[in-house]
Amino acid sequence: MSTPIIVQKFGGTSVANLDRMRNVADVVAAERDLGHHVVVVVSAMSGETNRLVALAHDAVEEPPPRELDALVATGEQVSTALLAMILSQRGIPARSILGYQMGLRTTGAHTRARITEFDRRTFDQAFAEGTVLVAAGFQGVDPEGDVTTLGRGGSDTTAVAIAAGLGASFCDIYTDVDGVYTADPNVVSNARLLEKIAYEEMLELASLGAKVLQIRSVELAMKYEVPVRVRNSFTRSAGTLLTKEDADMEGVAVQGVSLDRNDAKISLRRVPDQPGVASKIFTPLSEAGIVVDMIIQNASEDGKTDLTFTVPKTDLKQATRIVEKLAQEIGIHRVETAPDIAKVSIVGVGMRSHAGVATRTFSVLAQEGINIQMISTSEIKISVVIDEKYAELAVRSLHEVFELHKEPKARTSWT
Amino acid sequence: MSTPIIVQKFGGTSVANLDRMRNVADVVAAERDLGHHVVVVVSAMSGETNRLVALAHDAVEEPPPRELDALVATGEQVSTALLAMILSQRGIPARSILGYQMGLRTTGAHTRARITEFDRRTFDQAFAEGTVLVAAGFQGVDPEGDVTTLGRGGSDTTAVAIAAGLGASFCDIYTDVDGVYTADPNVVSNARLLEKIAYEEMLELASLGAKVLQIRSVELAMKYEVPVRVRNSFTRSAGTLLTKEDADMEGVAVQGVSLDRNDAKISLRRVPDQPGVASKIFTPLSEAGIVVDMIIQNASEDGKTDLTFTVPKTDLKQATRIVEKLAQEIGIHRVETAPDIAKVSIVGVGMRSHAGVATRTFSVLAQEGINIQMISTSEIKISVVIDEKYAELAVRSLHEVFELHKEPKARTSWT
Repeated sequence: MSTPIIVQKFGGTSVANLDRMRNVADVVAAERDLGHHVVVVVSAMSGETNRLVALAHDAVEEPPPRELDALVATGEQVSTALLAMILSQRGIPARSILGYQMGLRTTGAHTRARITEFDRRTFDQAFAEGTVLVAAGFQGVDPEGDVTTLGRGGSDTTAVAIAAGLGASFCDIYTDVDGVYTADPNVVSNARLLEKIAYEEMLELASLGAKVLQIRSVELAMKYEVPVRVRNSFTRSAGTLLTKEDADMEGVAVQGVSLDRNDAKISLRRVPDQPGVASKIFTPLSEAGIVVDMIIQNASEDGKTDLTFTVPKTDLKQATRIVEKLAQEIGIHRVETAPDIAKVSIVGVGMRSHAGVATRTFSVLAQEGINIQMISTSEIKISVVIDEKYAELAVRSLHEVFELHKEPKARTSWT
Repeated sequence: MSTPIIVQKFGGTSVANLDRMRNVADVVAAERDLGHHVVVVVSAMSGETNRLVALAHDAVEEPPPRELDALVATGEQVSTALLAMILSQRGIPARSILGYQMGLRTTGAHTRARITEFDRRTFDQAFAEGTVLVAAGFQGVDPEGDVTTLGRGGSDTTAVAIAAGLGASFCDIYTDVDGVYTADPNVVSNARLLEKIAYEEMLELASLGAKVLQIRSVELAMKYEVPVRVRNSFTRSAGTLLTKEDADMEGVAVQGVSLDRNDAKISLRRVPDQPGVASKIFTPLSEAGIVVDMIIQNASEDGKTDLTFTVPKTDLKQATRIVEKLAQEIGIHRVETAPDIAKVSIVGVGMRSHAGVATRTFSVLAQEGINIQMISTSEIKISVVIDEKYAELAVRSLHEVFELHKEPKARTSWT
């Protein structure tokens, strides 16, 4: 049997300074001592990417994306070189490696490029030599040979892509939390660490603002069925395994509750209910790069309807300007905005076979006197938008009623 | 006639912060407005290379050279990207370009690699587009595709190599001084700015510690006869032109006086005067990477001789340890060290045809009561080692007696 390959990714907080890098070297050494081939992927030292982006914005108002990528990619170049030095001194043969050196090709979409391929020969050669490659996350090269980056959290995607390409046994994403919890432990004190979670559940949680992994890395892991473990580089916990949905999981109605405070709400009152109106409203928003999340349209009355949607809080001003301009053109009665909302979601692949989840969710919130402003559902998720001041209360109540602090088998049976 | 190509190199102080980079953009714009093709080569922002080297030494005792190169090369990557942004915002189409992107190949000697070739197609394409390429100085890639660096001041060499390869009309090295002077203006208040200087003279000055240009860049400029101008990016002076020796220069006995305080002296008393002894002494020094500069051996007496040589002050301790160990093996009577010496040199291609320069030098120093400890001469240079406390006095006296503050034609005629 061939030697198992383990890809280890260390985030910014895990390589924040030289002491923490020495801790990372211990983690690498421990894995290597098990006789595994180890590939390390690192992010920039924490704060470094922000510092470089700020520098670019001090230099010019709108940094050209190509140059911004060349600039911020240096963050990972620094941390890979330093970690390779520390590993070498520890007696572990190690080499840093940049995007272009591993043939990590991406699309040319600067600041949000997508990986198209990489050259596994460099890795195979390193395995043959017993050398640990310390690969720069977040960066690649486009067809022009220019440096590109993969967007915030892109190092996760680099790690998963390399793990997929190499057929790794595990892709371990080391971070500063023990894994994925049933809810944010800062909000719910008895939140429980999940031993495993289905890719689809993780995808919903990632997109709902639980910022453990870059969403694209989860999509990639799901596509290639890469066993990803979210682990803590400080406690070296076993962490949470991302895996295919299995029979166990189907028995669990709700895996977790997530909270997202990053959106704001815009309501358009008495919109003419004519074909093409929605397109007239959402096309300019999309063209401005504003991502609209939830959309609700009420039943029409007198040929007029109400339209409510959410956008990132950071885009609220710009979105409001755009729709207020449209309001005159289209004949919308009034534009109302609400920045103080929160989105609370419950996620679980078991919801597919548990019909009562939605009902129980709504009744719990009603009991607590929390008004639901918007609802959105998928097969494995129910999201509600509520007043932001009730956010923690809602999360704690739902966590309690679904007994998420207990092992799934110990929970009250209900449908 | 084809459009002239100008290569402009900006050192660390010229790109020390964003304001200075904006000043650099003005210099680039002015050159471009003359209708020239412009290539820009930049160093790291001043202090950045030192910061990165210190970080490496904080990480491990002896940073592996390959990783050190990958680390420090980020300094230039940052400044090129920022300058390209600033040029673009100013309406000048610009692109940053790294070593690997211009096919700038070097030997594999990390931290002191030599350029072997580069690909001019990238530059020709940019000229055709009217784009200014902002090339990272100091860095290249070796045959393995790994990042290499060219040693301190290596960006000068990058600029000259590119100028040579492109057949540039001028390679302008922008720095924070107005050009090359007859002596250090901080020591000699009436030091005169040289309009031009022969490559060979500059080579001697560079090697004598006048740190205007990296010595290798001068060698390269001489080899390919690249017209190099040393200019001030703040005052935008016409600067000093490095050129082939011409008839004018031959008439000038002395071009300048330089002062080097970086060396220390080691004297070995009563060394057995046997074949192979010198080799026994200097081989271990060379193997330890210590560069021995001047060597003097006295006439032998009783089969014993005295041997005196200079090494960089920073290597004095290590060199002393090495020779003290040898002293016992070889049977050397005593090892004496003197850190407080200075080397004063006068340089000029005209010396070849002016016999009296040496005599006058020695007599001036004698008149001032300065004892000469060592003498070394070449066809175009006389160097003397003296007590460090007389260094400024010696430089000023020589500058005065050879009338270097005057235009060459206005000087007293003598041979």
